Amino acid sequence: MSISLIILAAGKGTRMNSDLPKVLHPIGQAPMLAHAMRAGAALDPERIVVVAGHGADAVTKAARDIDDRVDVVLQEEQLGTAHAVAQARPALDGFDGDVVVLYGDTPFLRPETLERMAAARAHHDVIVLGFDAADPGRYGRLVMNGDTLERIVEFKDASDEERRISFCNSGLMAADAATLFDLISQVGNDNAAGEYYLTDVVELARARGLSVTAIACDEAETLGVNSRTELAAAEAAFQARARAALMENGVTLMAPETVFLSLDTVIGRDAVVEPNVVFGPGVTVESGARIRAFSHLEGCHVSRGAIIGPFARLRPGAELAEDVHVGNFVEIKNAQVDEGAKINHLSYVGDATIGARTNVGAGTITCNYDGVMKHRTEIGRDVFIGSDTMLVAPVKVGDAAMTATGTVVTRDVEPGALAIARVPQENRPGYARRLMEMLRARKANKQKGQN
Amino acid sequence: MSISLIILAAGKGTRMNSDLPKVLHPIGQAPMLAHAMRAGAALDPERIVVVAGHGADAVTKAARDIDDRVDVVLQEEQLGTAHAVAQARPALDGFDGDVVVLYGDTPFLRPETLERMAAARAHHDVIVLGFDAADPGRYGRLVMNGDTLERIVEFKDASDEERRISFCNSGLMAADAATLFDLISQVGNDNAAGEYYLTDVVELARARGLSVTAIACDEAETLGVNSRTELAAAEAAFQARARAALMENGVTLMAPETVFLSLDTVIGRDAVVEPNVVFGPGVTVESGARIRAFSHLEGCHVSRGAIIGPFARLRPGAELAEDVHVGNFVEIKNAQVDEGAKINHLSYVGDATIGARTNVGAGTITCNYDGVMKHRTEIGRDVFIGSDTMLVAPVKVGDAAMTATGTVVTRDVEPGALAIARVPQENRPGYARRLMEMLRARKANKQKGQN
Amino acid sequence: MSISLIILAAGKGTRMNSDLPKVLHPIGQAPMLAHAMRAGAALDPERIVVVAGHGADAVTKAARDIDDRVDVVLQEEQLGTAHAVAQARPALDGFDGDVVVLYGDTPFLRPETLERMAAARAHHDVIVLGFDAADPGRYGRLVMNGDTLERIVEFKDASDEERRISFCNSGLMAADAATLFDLISQVGNDNAAGEYYLTDVVELARARGLSVTAIACDEAETLGVNSRTELAAAEAAFQARARAALMENGVTLMAPETVFLSLDTVIGRDAVVEPNVVFGPGVTVESGARIRAFSHLEGCHVSRGAIIGPFARLRPGAELAEDVHVGNFVEIKNAQVDEGAKINHLSYVGDATIGARTNVGAGTITCNYDGVMKHRTEIGRDVFIGSDTMLVAPVKVGDAAMTATGTVVTRDVEPGALAIARVPQENRPGYARRLMEMLRARKANKQKGQN
Repeated sequence: MSISLIILAAGKGTRMNSDLPKVLHPIGQAPMLAHAMRAGAALDPERIVVVAGHGADAVTKAARDIDDRVDVVLQEEQLGTAHAVAQARPALDGFDGDVVVLYGDTPFLRPETLERMAAARAHHDVIVLGFDAADPGRYGRLVMNGDTLERIVEFKDASDEERRISFCNSGLMAADAATLFDLISQVGNDNAAGEYYLTDVVELARARGLSVTAIACDEAETLGVNSRTELAAAEAAFQARARAALMENGVTLMAPETVFLSLDTVIGRDAVVEPNVVFGPGVTVESGARIRAFSHLEGCHVSRGAIIGPFARLRPGAELAEDVHVGNFVEIKNAQVDEGAKINHLSYVGDATIGARTNVGAGTITCNYDGVMKHRTEIGRDVFIGSDTMLVAPVKVGDAAMTATGTVVTRDVEPGALAIARVPQENRPGYARRLMEMLRARKANKQKGQN
Repeated sequence: MSISLIILAAGKGTRMNSDLPKVLHPIGQAPMLAHAMRAGAALDPERIVVVAGHGADAVTKAARDIDDRVDVVLQEEQLGTAHAVAQARPALDGFDGDVVVLYGDTPFLRPETLERMAAARAHHDVIVLGFDAADPGRYGRLVMNGDTLERIVEFKDASDEERRISFCNSGLMAADAATLFDLISQVGNDNAAGEYYLTDVVELARARGLSVTAIACDEAETLGVNSRTELAAAEAAFQARARAALMENGVTLMAPETVFLSLDTVIGRDAVVEPNVVFGPGVTVESGARIRAFSHLEGCHVSRGAIIGPFARLRPGAELAEDVHVGNFVEIKNAQVDEGAKINHLSYVGDATIGARTNVGAGTITCNYDGVMKHRTEIGRDVFIGSDTMLVAPVKVGDAAMTATGTVVTRDVEPGALAIARVPQENRPGYARRLMEMLRARKANKQKGQN
Repeated sequence: MSISLIILAAGKGTRMNSDLPKVLHPIGQAPMLAHAMRAGAALDPERIVVVAGHGADAVTKAARDIDDRVDVVLQEEQLGTAHAVAQARPALDGFDGDVVVLYGDTPFLRPETLERMAAARAHHDVIVLGFDAADPGRYGRLVMNGDTLERIVEFKDASDEERRISFCNSGLMAADAATLFDLISQVGNDNAAGEYYLTDVVELARARGLSVTAIACDEAETLGVNSRTELAAAEAAFQARARAALMENGVTLMAPETVFLSLDTVIGRDAVVEPNVVFGPGVTVESGARIRAFSHLEGCHVSRGAIIGPFARLRPGAELAEDVHVGNFVEIKNAQVDEGAKINHLSYVGDATIGARTNVGAGTITCNYDGVMKHRTEIGRDVFIGSDTMLVAPVKVGDAAMTATGTVVTRDVEPGALAIARVPQENRPGYARRLMEMLRARKANKQKGQN
């Protein structure tokens, strides 16, 4: 049975107190919407329809960045969840499989849960996802009779007995597309808020004699985000889970609570991560690498045996081969650094290749930007780049070449050659003493003048 | 009714194990004394008297730095709280309003609580501040009879029934100045410690038929600090509260527990603060700015759309206009940076102005110090400062000018001009290979010599 | 009575999911084995025998690095704890004192506990270390009769009554060497696992009429480490304890939870440590020094009045005298920096001496590596090193000398002299404007060519 997803992402999130649409607030450096889509991807969906509303342009752009097959439909007015789902109908024209409705602001749903919902369709017409609430509070209650979901009762309409039910409604639903849209077309808005509620589908389905059930997931999976504080809590929950998973896989996190991971961070066994490391999106670290304290990595690859930091910054496109060393106050961007190369101090390497075993001295800068365009620097293997070398790109330095300290390299350097540009040092005896005396006298005069 | 404050700040804080007077230990980068004075400021006090003792010189200086209207009086010997208050009498000579007595080491008192104490003076002669203790332990108990505070009973003197009272004494008190000093002059020291206790005022007032009441505040407001561990706990409480307030106001803190705020930090809505950011005193960040990980800000202003860090340091006097970018390993001090200017890598900009849209290359340094005095660097708009440019201040670079990579700029550069100081690069073929061979041979010889 | 230690360190630690032997995983930057050996050192042991197995080479090297008197013996197959202890017999040949058996993976044992075990030998033949378990779970129970340890009963063999005992076996044991080895030679392996258990010694000793007792320690001391998650928890416990001890001694930790300490970190009273500081091994900070945020220290000494950071890195051999200032993005390695010297911005100082009151300008680099060997830089007192000075070692700069901004210093500079190497600045009017126009035109052409 083919499956399509409808992801509701139209809400404003008033309590977020933000101009950014709620589903675009990030967790693990990825928008919440990406988390929902990632869970949904487990169902190998034929179509994915995102229902946008507030900030629809931004949501559309973000959704397509995550998966370019997404259809985004607009819910102009927010008239309730059933109304939101109804907007997806045209985008599912011609699709005759199952539909799963999920939410852009519940980022913790596990793929396995969606798979269980889909599988339950073999025996039931409509599947609702529920959870056993530790504190059911004002959630809607799922009234079961054996396997059958009799009805969903809102807290305010529930009897005392029903309020004692702890099995609550998550809002997720799965059904055959035709059935779902047919049922939704019958949902009314005769309630206090004047909204069309997706939950009403259950009663309508039961009235038609359809088989409706609810399956249970962990309460934590249904955690929604409605304020910055809840966002911070969700981020913390994400991080705790991601850190635990890494440790389980044999990664040493010396102080897990100080390591920040992204949704797509990959770190190999026996890699060591010291305290205070931030992994932005798109980072892969191989087994046995060491990421030292105060390092910041984004969009980069760190190979086996490499040592990064402390105080290193790897930006997108940094590809570090085995046993590379990147030291303190070093920034690397869009650069291939080959085996055993060392860039240990106070350097900027951008838009470059660095050959194997090459040593890049302190204070080296690839001058990749001429004010208008970026250019590349190519450095061979076994090169010795002297301290404070400026490499004015485009420029090449051949294998086993050297640059003298302080050289501004504007022309290519042949293999084995030394590039040097240096003014002879002149020592002026006694000059420093006299200069200091003069400066001190000038300062004293100036201060006198001010009195 | 005009109000004056007496702030008790004479204690040594033996358990702090410190040479720094207790009230000067900081919370949120401001001395505890500043927190107490900030709360007291809500009463718009006519006079503020700080009673200093241990480390009086340092306390005096700090108190005046916070508010130069403060009177500091000396309590030479620490003979009890009533004795401390008595020292304030000369400084309040001629003042005939109300006095509120508070403490330099209870930093969490809310201004609203002080306002309620002051307001209660409309109906009562003496006001004591109490709190409902979760664990009353050895606190003094407030024995109430309706609105009337009958007496304060010390734990050791309390009956079993009185020990069951959970309403406890915070030590704060408000009364008419004349009444308070008159009552205090009657307090004796006939007790085990031989001290004059401010709490005895209650019994004396009652004996005269004065109306005494107690009002309640939250226990957390009365939290005192007596050891480094309590100081760290107080700091944590301050940070938790300050972070929550920012999130409530629509600031995204990705990992709130890693962001450190000062008493006076201001951050606008929809600003994003990544993990591991320290805000020292005097920072304002406008809406929509982004402060990236591992950044350190003090005494600076960051405007809308600016992106700071990671690994950026903004020092006092850094004024960043809209859309400015400050990147990694960059330090900015006492500098105005105009709209859209970029300083992205490994630079020091101090005592400078940078015009709009100017790009400051990697490794740029404003050489502002000649060993005796500091001088200014003025850079115009649309300037391109090449990498490794040294700007020897005082110096000016005109609009739309450029500096070539590696130039030491000692003279002003006219608008539209290029400043260059460069030695031609010389490539010496084969020289690097021969040099390496020679160095390796020398090392081998040396090692042989050592055997 | 002389004492020897047998430290069991042969286990693989399968659940660690690591190639590193379990006892070498670090806590507080020191291998767990070092913690056990440090506790054992309190007994002033005559011999220390480490029983290695998995990763024996690495364990041997690490054990000797910690204490070069260690004997390492190999347990080829892991046949149980009694078998492990038996391997130590040859290494203790000729030793006729007491033996204490402890474990390489229980890093929190207090020296005082071992001393109590040793002292108990005055009255008993065999001493077992027990602890009162909050949740005894599946631990072996210690069945006491007055002072006498009747037997150790494994959970699975325990009666209901015995399971109610909360006094549990830690595995540590002390006895006379001859007695211990004699008893061990009688231990059999007739059990489900086919292993030789050290606990069986108790029953054998009792059967011989020997006096066996158990003494109690705190449960936290017996905490073992079996997975990365437990390792992280042990690290957290170590850090919490180490931070609390510092605060107790009068050190201010503004945010203790963000400060990471090593087993051997020493910090003096009234030193202040700001948030996010990592202390690697071998650091001493004197009273009253200030370590600012985002600093990383290893193997260094920081004297009274010094200010380090933010964003400073001190590497092994950095010796900072009183009132030295080390600022942001500065790395110091193997260097003596004398009183009042300042290195405030973006510098690398390695293999160097810096004299008193010398000011090292921004962007200064000691070029200590010629590609083959390291060389030293010696800078005198009261020197002014201009920004972007490259000191090509070996080189000396005399007292009260100066270097001009941007100078590459390759020859020694006499006291009081100015070293300068500078190309005159040339301003080319209008050139920057024309260059920008040309570059923009080139870019436009290129883009056209691509369409």
